[in-house]
Amino acid sequence: MEFTGKDFENFKIHLRKAEQVLKSTRPTANDLFFGIDFVMKKALDNFDADIAKKYALKAANEYADWSAEMCRQIGEHGNNLIKNNQNILTHCNAGALACVDFGTALSPIRIAHYSKKNIFVYVDETRPRNQGASLTAWELAQEKINHAIIADNAAGHFMKRGKIDMVIVGADRIAMNGDVANKIGTYEKAVLAKENNVTFYVAAPSSTFDISAKTGEDIPIEERSEDEILYMHGMDEKGNINKFRISPKESTAKNPAFDVTPAKYITGIITERGVIKPTKEEIERFVGGKIIQQPL
Amino acid sequence: MEFTGKDFENFKIHLRKAEQVLKSTRPTANDLFFGIDFVMKKALDNFDADIAKKYALKAANEYADWSAEMCRQIGEHGNNLIKNNQNILTHCNAGALACVDFGTALSPIRIAHYSKKNIFVYVDETRPRNQGASLTAWELAQEKINHAIIADNAAGHFMKRGKIDMVIVGADRIAMNGDVANKIGTYEKAVLAKENNVTFYVAAPSSTFDISAKTGEDIPIEERSEDEILYMHGMDEKGNINKFRISPKESTAKNPAFDVTPAKYITGIITERGVIKPTKEEIERFVGGKIIQQPL
Repeated sequence: MEFTGKDFENFKIHLRKAEQVLKSTRPTANDLFFGIDFVMKKALDNFDADIAKKYALKAANEYADWSAEMCRQIGEHGNNLIKNNQNILTHCNAGALACVDFGTALSPIRIAHYSKKNIFVYVDETRPRNQGASLTAWELAQEKINHAIIADNAAGHFMKRGKIDMVIVGADRIAMNGDVANKIGTYEKAVLAKENNVTFYVAAPSSTFDISAKTGEDIPIEERSEDEILYMHGMDEKGNINKFRISPKESTAKNPAFDVTPAKYITGIITERGVIKPTKEEIERFVGGKIIQQPL
Repeated sequence: MEFTGKDFENFKIHLRKAEQVLKSTRPTANDLFFGIDFVMKKALDNFDADIAKKYALKAANEYADWSAEMCRQIGEHGNNLIKNNQNILTHCNAGALACVDFGTALSPIRIAHYSKKNIFVYVDETRPRNQGASLTAWELAQEKINHAIIADNAAGHFMKRGKIDMVIVGADRIAMNGDVANKIGTYEKAVLAKENNVTFYVAAPSSTFDISAKTGEDIPIEERSEDEILYMHGMDEKGNINKFRISPKESTAKNPAFDVTPAKYITGIITERGVIKPTKEEIERFVGGKIIQQPL
């Protein structure tokens, strides 16, 4: 659709529609809403559709650059927690493919590797969407970081045997009491980490904190299609990606895409401004009364 | 190979070879060794190859019938623990496909269903071999028992939300202190059950107890091919089973097939002679100084 300066009211209606469509795609991750709000504000702070479009594009680019820099800073702070010869477990993909350039959970791992630390990464396969086995393993392979994919079921076994020194995961949304919503299975790994005295860190920029969520109970959990459990995608011998059924045709599935990890299982949250404890006091001080940091 | 009475010494060598081959297939499950020892003893208690062969076959059939009856009794005792309208989680396949007719973990579920109790079964997919999603879901579907397959990652989430009332799993080997070796991931579910005050039962006949294993540390854990993680099998649209790669070609995997759940996470062990506590005292009284019960 083309809009001119005179059509600015229609353009705003068009923008609001786009905003609604984008925001309705996923309910759980806070940064989706933050990013859209940021671009919307920059676009609507104008009185001319052509200028608004330019500002929207400029804002989106600014946002991407800001996000990459936040993630790099998370990596620097997180790297201080990683010792030489450590084995790190991660769950899902919180890397460059999820964020920009550095990622959140993968940023400390990346920077530890750039600093010549000898590390080994246990990559949770992360059923049902296999983000670990496909995306995270691929990113680590590109960086030549030593790693092995494990079944999500095996993480506890390796922790109990002392094979895992720390866990770093990303976050989709963090409540003001330090409860963290993240990919389904994160809660399981956090409970197992605590049980085995393994430190458990969440890596996330300030834009992931949601001051409207007092606790994890206020975070909506996306329920996704059961087909993600009943079917799977994989590459055949010819390199074609195919969908195939991995369960009986009479069976159904339940597929919550995220879970909430209560703050008590979390050692610390690695942000762009340092590592903070998952407590109400520390998070309130961190967000400083503001909803979130403004990009640059 | 054909043997006559005069060749009994050669037949015994032949039998010992077969015994070694069968025993070397899997190191973790105790019942494999128990079953082979039972048939071997019945065969070798003879002085003639032809008679020995007949006795071996007879013993194998006796063993299967005995095993099915043990499992049925496990089901009766386990059914007493299941209330109406309960939601039960199970991990892996400990059903008719793993044992005979009733299964171990699935036997209480089956008998509760036959008793017209309204139950719902959460079926852990059980990566990497998907025994839950394929075998257990299929068995439950055949019995028309209400169930849903879930990602192994989601079990903790459902427990935290109060959706799961009890867990019943099978066992590959039980140590004399009550530690239980079972399919990888069992330990994770047991820790999560304890954390969420969900009762956690292990269903196993007396032949699963190993008096030579003082604790779980004495139980060998089978490490299996990494291909089980890196590839997957599924059915395409034409109904053909194919192998697919589900991970980057540069990535490796680690694949322990079993884990050990310490006794402290286990509410009780459902045996053919009732439910016992996973303590040294109670297990010693249960096995009564003998290695295991003799079939029939």
